[in-house]
Amino acid sequence: MEQSTIVLKGDICYSKSLGELTTLEQGFLVCEDGLVAGVYERLPERFAGVPLQDFGHQLIIPGLVDLHVHAPQYSYRGMHMDLELLDWLNHYTFPEEAKYTDTDYARKRYPVFVDDLRRSATTRACIFATVHVPATEILMDLLERSGLRTMVGKVNMDRNAPDYLCEESAEVSAQETVEWVKDCRKRYRNTKPILTPRFTPSCTDALMENLKMIQMRYGLPLQSHLSENLSEIEWVKELCPQAEFYGDAYDRFGLFGVDCPTVMAHCVYSDEREIRRMKENGVFIAHCPESNMNVSSGIAPVRRFLEEGLHVGLGSDVAGGADLSIFTAMMHAIQASKLRWRLVDESLRPLSAAEAFYLGTKGGGAFFGKVGSFEPGYEFDAVVLDDSRIADPREYKILDRLERFIYLHQEQDVKAKYVAGRELQK
Amino acid sequence: MEQSTIVLKGDICYSKSLGELTTLEQGFLVCEDGLVAGVYERLPERFAGVPLQDFGHQLIIPGLVDLHVHAPQYSYRGMHMDLELLDWLNHYTFPEEAKYTDTDYARKRYPVFVDDLRRSATTRACIFATVHVPATEILMDLLERSGLRTMVGKVNMDRNAPDYLCEESAEVSAQETVEWVKDCRKRYRNTKPILTPRFTPSCTDALMENLKMIQMRYGLPLQSHLSENLSEIEWVKELCPQAEFYGDAYDRFGLFGVDCPTVMAHCVYSDEREIRRMKENGVFIAHCPESNMNVSSGIAPVRRFLEEGLHVGLGSDVAGGADLSIFTAMMHAIQASKLRWRLVDESLRPLSAAEAFYLGTKGGGAFFGKVGSFEPGYEFDAVVLDDSRIADPREYKILDRLERFIYLHQEQDVKAKYVAGRELQK
Repeated sequence: MEQSTIVLKGDICYSKSLGELTTLEQGFLVCEDGLVAGVYERLPERFAGVPLQDFGHQLIIPGLVDLHVHAPQYSYRGMHMDLELLDWLNHYTFPEEAKYTDTDYARKRYPVFVDDLRRSATTRACIFATVHVPATEILMDLLERSGLRTMVGKVNMDRNAPDYLCEESAEVSAQETVEWVKDCRKRYRNTKPILTPRFTPSCTDALMENLKMIQMRYGLPLQSHLSENLSEIEWVKELCPQAEFYGDAYDRFGLFGVDCPTVMAHCVYSDEREIRRMKENGVFIAHCPESNMNVSSGIAPVRRFLEEGLHVGLGSDVAGGADLSIFTAMMHAIQASKLRWRLVDESLRPLSAAEAFYLGTKGGGAFFGKVGSFEPGYEFDAVVLDDSRIADPREYKILDRLERFIYLHQEQDVKAKYVAGRELQK
Repeated sequence: MEQSTIVLKGDICYSKSLGELTTLEQGFLVCEDGLVAGVYERLPERFAGVPLQDFGHQLIIPGLVDLHVHAPQYSYRGMHMDLELLDWLNHYTFPEEAKYTDTDYARKRYPVFVDDLRRSATTRACIFATVHVPATEILMDLLERSGLRTMVGKVNMDRNAPDYLCEESAEVSAQETVEWVKDCRKRYRNTKPILTPRFTPSCTDALMENLKMIQMRYGLPLQSHLSENLSEIEWVKELCPQAEFYGDAYDRFGLFGVDCPTVMAHCVYSDEREIRRMKENGVFIAHCPESNMNVSSGIAPVRRFLEEGLHVGLGSDVAGGADLSIFTAMMHAIQASKLRWRLVDESLRPLSAAEAFYLGTKGGGAFFGKVGSFEPGYEFDAVVLDDSRIADPREYKILDRLERFIYLHQEQDVKAKYVAGRELQK
């Protein structure tokens, strides 16, 4: 038996689908060559000699997936949340992001973000950096060493940004992006580049056209923002009068999921046309409920997306969201869905804890391939959670413990973490 | 100089009013005989010889106040939140509360609640127990020993409760209440009895009349629930067709603040008549935003209450709320107010972090007298918070650190705690 086979024992919990949560007390979870071999009530004979890690009654769940987070904003998470999106960007976000022109600043700040992400229950993330290539590569170096699997975007923005942050031209932005992408391919295994036009207001048509060419040349996924805030949506209408709806402003350039995996954050105000287009194009939605509360955006119709069979995952959206924890994102997703049901539309029933868990694991994990579940053949991302601090006493079913963990977890409750079969050091 | 004078040094923060937050880096906070003597930039000469505790750059704030929490529900906090209020009561709450018939069960469960409350940043609380006097006194014994200052209610309910929990009659309920009140007066200094008719649907007119007599005889404050959930409000209309509005169903019995301090939890759907009556009668509102999300009740118009000058504080409402932390209640209060502004009524602007802090300190503290601020003459409730875990780096103003602490605190960040001048043991 090779060393690449390992067995974890504990109270196991994972989703097969939105409505199907599997739990197994004192089960065995087997990893072979970085993939899940299976979950077993009794360990099959053929794994008898394999190293077994017994986690007692701790919970073992798939690693969580953060589909939308801004690394440079981590330093001011939980502050300045008295403004709406566009004012918040101008007052706080852009001045902070501009500091990453300075690589020393990046070397000081990014380790804090990466360390906290590594210690969290998240194993995969789609991350916005800034426009600066050197600082972005400092971030990617750190992420590569962390053992996490991430997609990281050098941000593109060549209009409607302050002079100190705006890229010189579409061509310069594109040129730097190409060089960065080439460099990434040489340097990183676990850290992939993802195209990152900030959002429609930040990108000229010429830049969008350039990005499409780069996407096709290098086969790159893409992340951006969509239909987050009413003022933003009005602005996009002014900027792109020819677009049928906000998402169409991306789709006109082929940057809305048609050729490569694409994840759009927020979709708070996506209408039926936009929902249909996302479905046709296979666009992923990063639902960021805390951010949508904090920046006073509103509540996305997640149930509607799920009814349509759209791909939905969760995003912390630090620093629109204060908390890097995807468990916290699950809590806010449930709470926001209840308020939306009560205050906006009683036809869309709230999310359950099991459904929010699905979104934070397999739902978002699909953006990374077979990730976010313990079904055979899935990449072996697992985290071990000690809920004894909140157990009081330990007599509950796994689903109940999971629900409680969503509301009451703390960072230090994560006791072990595996990404693609490899255990991360604490 | 007597031992009852102490000085704390650190980064101090407290509210004078809703709109007025005072901060002082490296300030001196002086306690004399259990009361605040003052906050000083430089320590006055007359305190030169007094024992000084230097907390460095830790935050020193008034103790937090929880105006509404159910001790027996603590054991299932963060679970079973897939139902609305009335179903949730019948399925989970009543069966659990019934277990407190057994004093052994109370002796096993209540210490967990009291220990966690003691370790939290809360120094004062209004607490619901159950209908059972022996179990309620077990809880009160524990609270008395904790050093916290609390008001605790033996619950009254003589109708619309399951047989196994419903009190036999209004007379029996009243009789037991009187004996309990007498007993409390002998046994406790820091732990006061508070009349606790569960809510209108649980109490017959005869019981309400009895409770009014008991209130007048013993001068007791009162806590209950008000206008939380639409189905509940409809039910009260059916039960009390003569009442002009929900609050009037209490007021008809003189149990709505006219003679004694009264705190009503929720007020999600209080209309203008109810708001006016609360103002006339000086009723306190315990705003419980997390519970109102979790049980799908809605969002209370807190800004409207504040515009009217009503007394408003925060409640964790465990287990409708999952988290005992009043910092978490502040976070949810801000977030809920933003969603209400966006989705319901843009004339009521959202709460700021400083305003939420006021609600969780001085706003609710007023129910206990001069509590919740560091103005001279206030009872000396103080907590010391270490935010270095989230400081990254420590270059922010105190208000920014406070805002961040609201979103990102953990239980163990509370480093020291004083109640009425006495330091609690960790």
